[in-house]
Amino acid sequence: MVYITRKERFSAAHKLSIPEWSDEKNLEVFGKCSNPNWHGHNYELWVTVKGEPDKQTGFVLDLRRLSEIINEKIVDKLDHKNINMDVDFMKGKMSSTEVLAIAIWDEIKLHIDKLNCKLHCVKLQETSKNSVEYFGE
Amino acid sequence: MVYITRKERFSAAHKLSIPEWSDEKNLEVFGKCSNPNWHGHNYELWVTVKGEPDKQTGFVLDLRRLSEIINEKIVDKLDHKNINMDVDFMKGKMSSTEVLAIAIWDEIKLHIDKLNCKLHCVKLQETSKNSVEYFGE
Amino acid sequence: MVYITRKERFSAAHKLSIPEWSDEKNLEVFGKCSNPNWHGHNYELWVTVKGEPDKQTGFVLDLRRLSEIINEKIVDKLDHKNINMDVDFMKGKMSSTEVLAIAIWDEIKLHIDKLNCKLHCVKLQETSKNSVEYFGE
Amino acid sequence: MVYITRKERFSAAHKLSIPEWSDEKNLEVFGKCSNPNWHGHNYELWVTVKGEPDKQTGFVLDLRRLSEIINEKIVDKLDHKNINMDVDFMKGKMSSTEVLAIAIWDEIKLHIDKLNCKLHCVKLQETSKNSVEYFGE
Amino acid sequence: MVYITRKERFSAAHKLSIPEWSDEKNLEVFGKCSNPNWHGHNYELWVTVKGEPDKQTGFVLDLRRLSEIINEKIVDKLDHKNINMDVDFMKGKMSSTEVLAIAIWDEIKLHIDKLNCKLHCVKLQETSKNSVEYFGE
Amino acid sequence: MVYITRKERFSAAHKLSIPEWSDEKNLEVFGKCSNPNWHGHNYELWVTVKGEPDKQTGFVLDLRRLSEIINEKIVDKLDHKNINMDVDFMKGKMSSTEVLAIAIWDEIKLHIDKLNCKLHCVKLQETSKNSVEYFGE
Repeated sequence: MVYITRKERFSAAHKLSIPEWSDEKNLEVFGKCSNPNWHGHNYELWVTVKGEPDKQTGFVLDLRRLSEIINEKIVDKLDHKNINMDVDFMKGKMSSTEVLAIAIWDEIKLHIDKLNCKLHCVKLQETSKNSVEYFGE
Repeated sequence: MVYITRKERFSAAHKLSIPEWSDEKNLEVFGKCSNPNWHGHNYELWVTVKGEPDKQTGFVLDLRRLSEIINEKIVDKLDHKNINMDVDFMKGKMSSTEVLAIAIWDEIKLHIDKLNCKLHCVKLQETSKNSVEYFGE
Repeated sequence: MVYITRKERFSAAHKLSIPEWSDEKNLEVFGKCSNPNWHGHNYELWVTVKGEPDKQTGFVLDLRRLSEIINEKIVDKLDHKNINMDVDFMKGKMSSTEVLAIAIWDEIKLHIDKLNCKLHCVKLQETSKNSVEYFGE
Repeated sequence: MVYITRKERFSAAHKLSIPEWSDEKNLEVFGKCSNPNWHGHNYELWVTVKGEPDKQTGFVLDLRRLSEIINEKIVDKLDHKNINMDVDFMKGKMSSTEVLAIAIWDEIKLHIDKLNCKLHCVKLQETSKNSVEYFGE
Repeated sequence: MVYITRKERFSAAHKLSIPEWSDEKNLEVFGKCSNPNWHGHNYELWVTVKGEPDKQTGFVLDLRRLSEIINEKIVDKLDHKNINMDVDFMKGKMSSTEVLAIAIWDEIKLHIDKLNCKLHCVKLQETSKNSVEYFGE
Repeated sequence: MVYITRKERFSAAHKLSIPEWSDEKNLEVFGKCSNPNWHGHNYELWVTVKGEPDKQTGFVLDLRRLSEIINEKIVDKLDHKNINMDVDFMKGKMSSTEVLAIAIWDEIKLHIDKLNCKLHCVKLQETSKNSVEYFGE
């Protein structure tokens, strides 16, 4: 069993706030992340899959296919977008790194399962100081 | 003469578009950076000053003072903010990396000149692939 | 279950030597790390906690609280200090990266358990070539 | 139990192709990695071992010994070499990152077991976007 | 005047040797870089241009055009290629980082001059320890 | 004229204080850098030389020679040492990054001038936030 990781990047705007709450309460709970006029990040995304290397090619999977899935299902929808407003699979959700990582897992899981390997981990870094990992359980 | 550089970071939202233009024209000229609902970046900022090290302390300047100036005049105003909407010194300006770097220079120049050294360069990185340097001329 | 990681930094001096041993024996066992006049590093510290994201906020925990704990209990005590001489929780211990990582775990474990999540991993990097991970078992 | 990681680097040439196949088929399956005249990478290698820190020295193992093993058995054989042509332990194998990581594990496993600790993981990065981890099972 | 830099990457094989020399002499002069069966690197390339930001767009130049030129004229010809054998503009030249940086400058200079700005610097990094800058003079 | 840069690293302890001053005054002027029991850093050092590439070899200079000079004259004297106490060329000097960069320039200048090229810049990074450049004038 070998674990193989592909890294991609996207730049997006978001804010953390609960519409039913006042600006004051959002500021208290979410701090500067609640700025009503948005802020943004250069996100870094690592997707790890696991499987047996093919006897002939030496590949767990074709990395070009993995990259295509990540770009088509995730990066194209998030890059240079507003996570709260523009992204179909984030509608009605908080745009915390935790929730976004879980949503990315859910979006790509089935597509990767068809590649004869298993999705192992989605790691998402919001800033150089903060990152999140989700293993599907 | 020694050149000393301090690095700081801020995360902000912005978009590139000219209000008088249609969305189509903005998309044509500014590409995905024109997304009407904003996008954002983790900016990295390097401020370089030059001067003679003090005979006694060995310092060109007190880096704590340089860091205070950068944080008070720049980072506190940009971090977790919308560059187009929230930042006094960017009002009415395009939020391109070029224009932002020049504006940062203009904001800190006088404050650094009082520290017995000279502002040499403002370097601003928007993504790991794109950065800008401004030397004041 | 989501894993969330916060990164902090500190710069410290230390040496590896056993006081009862001769300088020669310390040099033989610990190499250049035994230099009697100390050496130092820019340490990088990653603290990983795990938990369920809150249904309403989308947070496993408030990262500001995690950062406060790490800074108050660890960084403030180690940054610009001598690990062997200045740090209460390292008194009488070897200052190897292994021992320091375990000691950091012991210092923050209880404080993090109160945040409705669990400490998962303390990762400590001494140089770009050497790092250590401790999972509490 | 503490996990300790050593990072080393090597620069090597390789290509991905199956000699019995035509250039067209190799191009279809391996893409630009099949270039008949080779290409190359700066590989980054992390070797992680686990064990109990020694009561007296605070060391899981002497990192100098670990580094010697990695350099003698792996880096000296791969650095500034052609993985397909010059490396004894890769003869007759595909030079995919997956296969290379497994081969590195097999080359160092016994030597590390003699150091009173256990090999835990071989991580091999081919480019900043692609890496592989192998845990021996 | 603002300086703007675009970073791109390519992975390539090469060797340093003079065909008229013996393997021994090549080894003596070029060390491990003379390995007859090639070796390779992940090169990082920074292209810096300078100009005045446009009053309306805030751009020195359209970075998409700069990126297109670098990719079409340089990266597509070098990535996953053998510098000595596969690259038209390197035929008959030594593939040292110095010579390659000058050749890259010569390939893109005219195309960038047409963008209403001036090529300022080509920086080429071969490994994390070695890099070269060329300013055209 | 091509500029070529070699990067090396060293880990060292130091403190900033003037022996004639009280601990209080040293703390006021040098802040946490004045800790009487020392602190330390992983320094990163870039040495840039300039010259014409040799017509035959394509080299400005043999990087192995440049690396030897930097290691013999600088790194071997600073790595795992106390800058204030253990380093001959720093005796009686403040160990600020500014003063250390100038001292490194003075130590290697003559040795590099003999290699048929000119020393251009010594860049020294103390932490990821602070660095210094010296051009000899």
